[in-house]
Amino acid sequence: MSLIVQKYGGTSVKDLDRIKAVAERIKRTRDAGHQVCVVVSARGGVTNRLIADAKSLHPNPDKREMDLLLSVGEQETIALTAIALQSLGVAAVSRTGAQAGIHTDLFHTKARIVDIDGGDIKEQLDAGRVVIVAGFQGVNSAGQITTLGRGGSDLSAIALAGALKADVCQIYTDVDGVYTADPRIVPNARKLDEVAYDEMLELASLGSKVMQSRSVEFASKFNVVFEVRSSFNDNPGTLVKAETTLEDVVVRGVAADRNQTKVVVSDLPDEPGVAARVFQALAQAHVNVDMIVQNVGRDGVANLTFTVGNDDASSAEEAVATVLKEVGAGAVRAAENVAKISVVGIGMRSHSGVASKMFDALADSGVNIQMISTSEIKISVIVDLEKAEHATRVVHTAFGLDRDD
Amino acid sequence: MSLIVQKYGGTSVKDLDRIKAVAERIKRTRDAGHQVCVVVSARGGVTNRLIADAKSLHPNPDKREMDLLLSVGEQETIALTAIALQSLGVAAVSRTGAQAGIHTDLFHTKARIVDIDGGDIKEQLDAGRVVIVAGFQGVNSAGQITTLGRGGSDLSAIALAGALKADVCQIYTDVDGVYTADPRIVPNARKLDEVAYDEMLELASLGSKVMQSRSVEFASKFNVVFEVRSSFNDNPGTLVKAETTLEDVVVRGVAADRNQTKVVVSDLPDEPGVAARVFQALAQAHVNVDMIVQNVGRDGVANLTFTVGNDDASSAEEAVATVLKEVGAGAVRAAENVAKISVVGIGMRSHSGVASKMFDALADSGVNIQMISTSEIKISVIVDLEKAEHATRVVHTAFGLDRDD
Repeated sequence: MSLIVQKYGGTSVKDLDRIKAVAERIKRTRDAGHQVCVVVSARGGVTNRLIADAKSLHPNPDKREMDLLLSVGEQETIALTAIALQSLGVAAVSRTGAQAGIHTDLFHTKARIVDIDGGDIKEQLDAGRVVIVAGFQGVNSAGQITTLGRGGSDLSAIALAGALKADVCQIYTDVDGVYTADPRIVPNARKLDEVAYDEMLELASLGSKVMQSRSVEFASKFNVVFEVRSSFNDNPGTLVKAETTLEDVVVRGVAADRNQTKVVVSDLPDEPGVAARVFQALAQAHVNVDMIVQNVGRDGVANLTFTVGNDDASSAEEAVATVLKEVGAGAVRAAENVAKISVVGIGMRSHSGVASKMFDALADSGVNIQMISTSEIKISVIVDLEKAEHATRVVHTAFGLDRDD
Repeated sequence: MSLIVQKYGGTSVKDLDRIKAVAERIKRTRDAGHQVCVVVSARGGVTNRLIADAKSLHPNPDKREMDLLLSVGEQETIALTAIALQSLGVAAVSRTGAQAGIHTDLFHTKARIVDIDGGDIKEQLDAGRVVIVAGFQGVNSAGQITTLGRGGSDLSAIALAGALKADVCQIYTDVDGVYTADPRIVPNARKLDEVAYDEMLELASLGSKVMQSRSVEFASKFNVVFEVRSSFNDNPGTLVKAETTLEDVVVRGVAADRNQTKVVVSDLPDEPGVAARVFQALAQAHVNVDMIVQNVGRDGVANLTFTVGNDDASSAEEAVATVLKEVGAGAVRAAENVAKISVVGIGMRSHSGVASKMFDALADSGVNIQMISTSEIKISVIVDLEKAEHATRVVHTAFGLDRDD
């Protein structure tokens, strides 16, 4: 008998019919002889409605009250899911985050899990009951309800699976798993059977929206193997685990981030400390800078180019303009017209020639590379936004990732 | 500085605009220099929607899960009310039933309060904060969320007022207070300035729907003075308290219960134990019998007439029919065509002639009295349903309860 932790997101429990379907899937797992602990999110739309209600009362509502408010979404789902299971003749009991012993730090709206004691989950499972746990929420040392921030329910499930020493952790979502590329861009992208934590992290941070990075980081830290799969079919999903058991693949996937702005700072005096002041100002304005390129011309002026997310573009431009005013030189211009294309794979650590293969493929198909950055398991290039989809497909084919059929 | 407990029902917090209005009323109380602890219900309609959701999944949902489910209604309101207060610049913090230390027994969906320790409410009040507590809910010794059943938020407020030794407990509702009669039946009914617990109890049990009996019983037991008043205006309401401070009034009010069925059992053998078997059968069928009249005719057969609530009429008829079959005699007939008119007043204990005054008034206006029952502070008569409103007005006038203007 295995212990399986399953997590169902907001889309999977959106309405009562879907909750019934989730209950039937849980019953099938239980009937196959497993102990089942289930983590659920709020019904799709509920959390956004509660946030809108609060914001209509206060532009910046108190975080402690927001946590108390938002936690009702999951509490509603756990009770309804338990009732749906009971109507199928399955013994089930629900537990809030606090009842499940999910202890967090004191930071409301994005608390971190500090400890999970599981409450009486083990006893309930041993007594033959399915246990339904509210995701996204915990309790702090002051007895106050906290929430874990975006992607919090995934984190609850992975952390619970670790704490309960579950044999399997299944993250049910509205996609079939992790793909070699976004299937909307690359129609012959393949679903991956397995992906390493580090690869999943890079893919997530590069715009593959399957899961938040922190859940994958947590899984990696505590070595919790989990599977991302669809709640709408029975297809096997993608197993996310440490690298050791994966077959030898150089490039696992291609990610495209079309939400990038290139900021060009020109005619800066080529003096020590000027570039540092620019990036200090950006840090103070909480702007995340991604890639950076600096050129010094013959005439003693420097040009600085960097990329930021589109949301940060105007803050970045303002922050830089302030510095330029102090310096008394230079000009800044933000142009929202670039995309970042990345290839990701643990295997590239030990393989040379990945970069040149990527650059060649792009050059051959007429895509100009504006900026480059590399890490141990990733190579990213900045290209024109209009070339983004074409570039993604070209690179996907070049690394042999296209589906065979 | 007084400590005031205020309770706002579901109608008073139905939508965000009403929550804002409630917050403004709380602020006025606080600005007048008082400490304020507020008990709120779920937003109007929320509890019914949750019940409908659960019932669509299971015809008879688990009571423990129902409590967990229904408690989200109040949890939503406390957070939104606290946020609304904060937007007015009032320091406020919300507390669930468990956080407020409302400890109950183990009976889910109609738990009884066994103890209130108040959690940190006193400290929060002393720190200058308004405390918003979720009504209707508590926590049992197993750490499970319980709910207090119908009228539970009133009970929460009165019990909290008692535990906190509040100076005033205000129950805000959608009516101005307790009237001498239902104003929809008796247009010149007067609002009462004061009413005794026992009178309020009789009026509540006789169909004046202002409050559930158990809240009034609790207030009486622990001598918690409370005021019933409207959340839609600033009119003074009705003070409910022990009898001693009330002026000497013989009849406090007139109640009409039009939800009564008269059941007639005829031609019973006049033998010992036959009537007892009828009432045993009714008790086993959980039928609440109200008034009973038995006549024995000269021919050795007895006729038994009793009243039940309309909802119990068919169960009562079935239960009696089973007994008649065993006895081998008699007939039963339920006719849903009666009303119970009652006059209530602590003063009538020491005044004779109340009954005759009531009977005379009814006789003079052509209303036939079918059954009579009396208690120390109440006289009730059964009349034809069509005569109910007329009879109520006649009695109201006879006891001088009509408004002067």
